[in-house]
Amino acid sequence: MSTRFTARRMVLSGPLAAAVARALGEVPGLATRVAAAGDVSAADLAWADSYAGFTVPGNLGSSAVRWVHAMAAGVDAALRSLGTSPAVGGPVLTRTVGSMPRAIGTYVLGQVLADHLQLARYRDQQARHVWAPLANRAPGNRGVVVLGTGEIGAGIAGVLRGGGFRVVGMNTHGRARAPFDEVVALRDGAAHLAGCDVLVCALPLTDATRGLLGHDLFAHLDDALVVNVGRGACVVPAGLRAALADGHVRHAVLDVVETEPLPGDDWRWDHERVTLTPHVSGPTEPADVVAAILQCREALARGERPALAVDLARGY
Amino acid sequence: MSTRFTARRMVLSGPLAAAVARALGEVPGLATRVAAAGDVSAADLAWADSYAGFTVPGNLGSSAVRWVHAMAAGVDAALRSLGTSPAVGGPVLTRTVGSMPRAIGTYVLGQVLADHLQLARYRDQQARHVWAPLANRAPGNRGVVVLGTGEIGAGIAGVLRGGGFRVVGMNTHGRARAPFDEVVALRDGAAHLAGCDVLVCALPLTDATRGLLGHDLFAHLDDALVVNVGRGACVVPAGLRAALADGHVRHAVLDVVETEPLPGDDWRWDHERVTLTPHVSGPTEPADVVAAILQCREALARGERPALAVDLARGY
Repeated sequence: MSTRFTARRMVLSGPLAAAVARALGEVPGLATRVAAAGDVSAADLAWADSYAGFTVPGNLGSSAVRWVHAMAAGVDAALRSLGTSPAVGGPVLTRTVGSMPRAIGTYVLGQVLADHLQLARYRDQQARHVWAPLANRAPGNRGVVVLGTGEIGAGIAGVLRGGGFRVVGMNTHGRARAPFDEVVALRDGAAHLAGCDVLVCALPLTDATRGLLGHDLFAHLDDALVVNVGRGACVVPAGLRAALADGHVRHAVLDVVETEPLPGDDWRWDHERVTLTPHVSGPTEPADVVAAILQCREALARGERPALAVDLARGY
Repeated sequence: MSTRFTARRMVLSGPLAAAVARALGEVPGLATRVAAAGDVSAADLAWADSYAGFTVPGNLGSSAVRWVHAMAAGVDAALRSLGTSPAVGGPVLTRTVGSMPRAIGTYVLGQVLADHLQLARYRDQQARHVWAPLANRAPGNRGVVVLGTGEIGAGIAGVLRGGGFRVVGMNTHGRARAPFDEVVALRDGAAHLAGCDVLVCALPLTDATRGLLGHDLFAHLDDALVVNVGRGACVVPAGLRAALADGHVRHAVLDVVETEPLPGDDWRWDHERVTLTPHVSGPTEPADVVAAILQCREALARGERPALAVDLARGY
């Protein structure tokens, strides 16, 4: 990114396209077009020098588009559409972060507290008009392990620490990062996994993370709550099911699954110790998308690599 | 309490009596007796100079007991048994606080997040195998008002602030107290009530607080979540029901009600916007009771008023 590039003609698609285009209408020197839902026409792509959306159209690679902005934080699908190799001259890929780390952290804290307070069991008792205190579930001093120490993982750690939890981050290299109490490398993590009360997956989907939460990793856990707010395909469903049966996992909260929506006949809908939410932990706020687009556009215009640029070699 | 008094013979009753007596067995100069559940014999009372339990036996007033320790934080029932007037020469009444403010704060935070995240609605959708994101409930910058700024209210404020909420305390005098962001007097509170997202009741039960959360107070609220972790009788049930119908209250979380257990035919069991839990937000930990008894005993032996002593005139 040593050359300066000022985006002047952006095509936007997806459910937030109209709202984002309206806000960008105020920006001098930047024209926008909103593509019809689910489709970006050849004419639009021929006109555009930049693109923003939740998905990346398959015909974008052969266009003159030099910059693609992902409206979401997860970019695995965008990378598949673009081709994952860091080809020289391909479009720059940037993403939205904004308020998402804090929102996802709040979701995780809410689910952890709901588990500790046994809110679902009390709700079932209320439905039966039963007034009966349950044995207190005291997590003691077992803490939380967060897999993934990027922006999302760090946001989760910040919120959980505010809630009084000790939070260990786990990644490939084990380098310290704020606000984690401690960061360990995955290869050194067995004791932390064995001792944790909650394991949170905040991983992007890459070749290294696909299926990482499977039999071998779950075998280290002891009666833990597992929360997945990363990517569904990081978890092996059969491995999770066995870990729920064997007591390694006491409860799984899944905001993401490998196929969304989850097929109607999947076992996870009805497992009494699985909580499903439909990929809502980190809502994309239009204002965050607008701010991210402006920030990236300005960096590109200065010939700098945007802070929100995706590392094509790493895949996130 | 200008005279020194060293308790030497304590009768304990209630579900924690045996565990607390065991721990107190280590204390030099202090003998204990565990009373049969629900009853304290005349012989035990004739022997005792001090008493600890969740309830206070009616025949205690005529005994030689000089110090009564309430195992719980709420002392309204104990005061009724003892007689509420600060009669000269009556027993000193102390109470347990310990980890309860933090536990109750965690309960409130969990319920507030469960409401914001709409966990109950997502659970209902899961039961029907429905994958459908709900419109995000963004509380914006509306904060939390906590009625009552004593130990429990302050504990709630501390936990909620850790969770990122702005917390206004409300009491009779309006004097600042940590860790509240702001404390206002109830008589000046109309604007704060109108603007709040969550109203938490952390009040003791006194003549001034009985029925305080009724029609007039609820009328100030606008689509607020109400959480009662104080005393059940602070809320007027008919006033709450009307406020739920009129939109002043969007959802009520009641850990306490005026009659516990709540009678089986009460409307609150089945109201879809009422969440009931059976008085579990602040579990009494035996270790906290033991620590409180020791702390109060030492203060009394020095001729000092224990920090955990109840003000008989105020009633808390």
